Amino acid sequence: MTRSWWGWGNVEDAVTGAEADALVARVSALLPTHDFTAHEAPEARDLGLPAPRVQVPASLAALPGLASDDVTDRAGHAHGKAYRDVVRNLAGDVRHAPDLVLRPRTEAQLGDCLDWAAGAGVAVVPYGGGTSVVGGVEPRFEGPSVSVDLGALDQVLEIDRTSRAARIQAGVLGPHLEDQLRPYGLTLRHFPQSFEFSTLGGWLATRAGGHYATVLTHIDDLVESLRVLTPVGVSESRRLPGSGAGPSHDRLFLGSEGTLGIITEAWMRLQDRPRFQRGVSVQFDDFDSAVAATRAIAQSGLNPSNCRLLDPMEALLNAGTATGGGILVLAFESADHPVDAWLDRALELVRDHGGRPGQPSGRESAAQDSGQDAAADGGQDAAGAWRSSFLRMPYQRDAVARRSIIAETFETACTWDRFGELHAAITAAANEAMARVCGDLGPGLVTCRFTHVYPDGPAPYYGIYAPGRWGSLLPMWDDIKAGVSEAIIAHGGTITHHHAVGRDHEPWYRRQRSEPFGTALAAAKRALDPAGVLNPGVLGLGG
Amino acid sequence: MTRSWWGWGNVEDAVTGAEADALVARVSALLPTHDFTAHEAPEARDLGLPAPRVQVPASLAALPGLASDDVTDRAGHAHGKAYRDVVRNLAGDVRHAPDLVLRPRTEAQLGDCLDWAAGAGVAVVPYGGGTSVVGGVEPRFEGPSVSVDLGALDQVLEIDRTSRAARIQAGVLGPHLEDQLRPYGLTLRHFPQSFEFSTLGGWLATRAGGHYATVLTHIDDLVESLRVLTPVGVSESRRLPGSGAGPSHDRLFLGSEGTLGIITEAWMRLQDRPRFQRGVSVQFDDFDSAVAATRAIAQSGLNPSNCRLLDPMEALLNAGTATGGGILVLAFESADHPVDAWLDRALELVRDHGGRPGQPSGRESAAQDSGQDAAADGGQDAAGAWRSSFLRMPYQRDAVARRSIIAETFETACTWDRFGELHAAITAAANEAMARVCGDLGPGLVTCRFTHVYPDGPAPYYGIYAPGRWGSLLPMWDDIKAGVSEAIIAHGGTITHHHAVGRDHEPWYRRQRSEPFGTALAAAKRALDPAGVLNPGVLGLGG
Repeated sequence: MTRSWWGWGNVEDAVTGAEADALVARVSALLPTHDFTAHEAPEARDLGLPAPRVQVPASLAALPGLASDDVTDRAGHAHGKAYRDVVRNLAGDVRHAPDLVLRPRTEAQLGDCLDWAAGAGVAVVPYGGGTSVVGGVEPRFEGPSVSVDLGALDQVLEIDRTSRAARIQAGVLGPHLEDQLRPYGLTLRHFPQSFEFSTLGGWLATRAGGHYATVLTHIDDLVESLRVLTPVGVSESRRLPGSGAGPSHDRLFLGSEGTLGIITEAWMRLQDRPRFQRGVSVQFDDFDSAVAATRAIAQSGLNPSNCRLLDPMEALLNAGTATGGGILVLAFESADHPVDAWLDRALELVRDHGGRPGQPSGRESAAQDSGQDAAADGGQDAAGAWRSSFLRMPYQRDAVARRSIIAETFETACTWDRFGELHAAITAAANEAMARVCGDLGPGLVTCRFTHVYPDGPAPYYGIYAPGRWGSLLPMWDDIKAGVSEAIIAHGGTITHHHAVGRDHEPWYRRQRSEPFGTALAAAKRALDPAGVLNPGVLGLGG
Repeated sequence: MTRSWWGWGNVEDAVTGAEADALVARVSALLPTHDFTAHEAPEARDLGLPAPRVQVPASLAALPGLASDDVTDRAGHAHGKAYRDVVRNLAGDVRHAPDLVLRPRTEAQLGDCLDWAAGAGVAVVPYGGGTSVVGGVEPRFEGPSVSVDLGALDQVLEIDRTSRAARIQAGVLGPHLEDQLRPYGLTLRHFPQSFEFSTLGGWLATRAGGHYATVLTHIDDLVESLRVLTPVGVSESRRLPGSGAGPSHDRLFLGSEGTLGIITEAWMRLQDRPRFQRGVSVQFDDFDSAVAATRAIAQSGLNPSNCRLLDPMEALLNAGTATGGGILVLAFESADHPVDAWLDRALELVRDHGGRPGQPSGRESAAQDSGQDAAADGGQDAAGAWRSSFLRMPYQRDAVARRSIIAETFETACTWDRFGELHAAITAAANEAMARVCGDLGPGLVTCRFTHVYPDGPAPYYGIYAPGRWGSLLPMWDDIKAGVSEAIIAHGGTITHHHAVGRDHEPWYRRQRSEPFGTALAAAKRALDPAGVLNPGVLGLGG
């Protein structure tokens, strides 16, 4: 398999042939006059990247495979995988590629890289799997930079079966991590959409959202301790199940997005692999009732592992099901006990709110078998269709981007009392912006789903699909994004629930963050990174 | 009711008369040769407190009730309520009383107090209910100080019934808070042992441990947003059910113990008042099996609201039950559904580990009725006895302290794999220290209970009971405390699970904290409190 330098995932997995034809046919039914010409990404060697402005010292250059100035490598590390990244790549607009890609094989080598960079004033952009959708791995500044790819630090180093925890290197990709845990009957159960192509360190640095729809929603809650390499030394917290000794060490580094240090290892809390799984899809006739049912479940204490509400447009577009009010995908799982009592009560709650459950699916399996599967995502019907679609979405996004379609997502979170107003404001802002930027090209669509829900509010996740104009896709999307971001900040949401801040969200993050907290964070940054070389510009820190 | 200046709680609730006689009889059965002379605390006016070295400016002095130089007030704000505080008070050793006690009635007045203090170089010790057991409210430094008592900021300002959240002023005491929530059918469900005499702001500043034995163990998890007055301005986070926008605002202030700012308000996540409650006590023949059963439940995903393991000595001393292996007190509760399926599975798990459950208790109640009650703590039998004893413990501690008994608690947390070794080390250190300091006075006792349990480890809580010598109680206890603290830090525990760091834990906290994190925290402190007036010395910051 070959990683695509310009688009999502593997070159071999791209949407082509009959799959591409079917996708174009579906979209053209909505946009009959759209120009579906398929544009090709340039070859990396034709991008005209300037020669590297820096070289590593001889001691580092002598390490085989450590430093690369290969243009495909550099181009592949220039951007993340947001729509705006893909569109710029397709247009050959790679103006801030790193001068070098460094691949330390040990923490000591990483330390040497960091020492050299801090001394030489070379910016360091930590790079896990490179799936940032917020400009988090892009050296978007003048001056020399290196992209430090942690991919070689990919081992599970230690397992504590009694406490269900493991010491894991930060550069490990999702599947390789699960492969190493499976023989012990354990799993991290963190399955973001980017699972195949993102790393533990990336999840931690960006506070990624994971598998569980309730309770353990962010990777933050799965952290027992962190080991972080900072320019002033190694910070390692104790392995503790809970503590109240001062402000949390780990919470300062979680979400620091490579600005305070580079996470090299973590002790992570693991789960026994689930044996009992039951799921169901519930249809609703109106969206308000579906939201009320979802809130009732979120506040019930039943804590489903999946509780994903698809609005009618999302259900239609990505699960192929027409409903008046959307679909709630519910699932419960346990390694310890059957979950029937939990599901039964959830079904009572959804029926109380006018929901019509389909046939529950489920199974009891040997401990070694299970993992990500259909039951965990709500059965075999609409939910299963949605799940398959979910994993193909980023590839489909690239396929339609090549055909001048705007397709991107964003997410937020808010308290339940504000959801109605916020949702209306976001939808209005998206529609207003699409009408303005797309004009005669045709109508755009907004879809909404809840990826995670809390007792005090949902995390709504939006999809935007609109006809674009080749050559103008970037400003068109940026205009839409600015509109919805304004609505989010004005109506009490967060600029990100689990996509991080990076460089793209910085203007809105700055308005969301309190001034004193910004002051404290900037002071911590200066103390830990006196030379200011760590990921400048991210979180509005330096750059 | 009159608050005791020198001891726990209300003067009228002290252990006296027949209760005191019975207590002395119980202890003297173990220590027949001990001198039980009951010493009296001096009157505050006889302490010889020096005159205040500072006065507030006229603008503040003009506010009725704001500034107090009353000696009882000052003496009552000089120490927290640890054993070492009570012993020093009994001995009339109050050498660091604050010069003034300030009681702002509004956030604006608090801001004026803070501005004056920063300008005048007067140290500010934030004071909630004053129940710190770690020297957190004691002006243990030279130079003038004011104790800023938040008690007048005691209102629930806003309730969002839909999201189940409320905006609450930081100075409210536990019972008054619950009184204000009860009409809405809501509860914070945070019931530390200090509930009657501690405040929301104190719980937040110290990351207090609460009612729930699993999942929502610390108050941290109940926080939606914080409003904090810092010397450089107000920091207010957004009300959000979840977010991944940079490092968490709130987690920097949670556990900051008054060193970075003064928490004035918080939006707190609330619970519906539980209607369904079932509890049971389980006896074990050996402690290892009891620990294994507790771990199985902690890792089962059943999430009991109570899961308190008492070791044999704790069960005997405080629940009056003789067992070979201790008692596990289990309870489940819900506002939404009967919890029988949960309890039934838990009973299977404890029986698998040799546990012998008593008769489960439980009830279904009207939503308005419930709250703290026997069922929530494991039924009417041994657990109920333990519960009653629990609330009287601090008063009993004072009664025996007056009679030259050493009686104090400390807690930690560790991963399951380390518990056996850590527990043995702590027990050995305590016994070694007691033998050394008590000598011929007689034997001491160590008891252990788990107050909270996590999938990856327990939070053991220890009691120390030993015969002391009047006039030497402080150095005797400090010697024991140093011994057990050394064992905790050497064997992978945390110096505190939910009692905070304050001034007393600082030497061990410093060893637990990583150097880079300490550097970052000190930098944040300097940025938010440039004059260094906020609670100097706490967390090793300034002073």
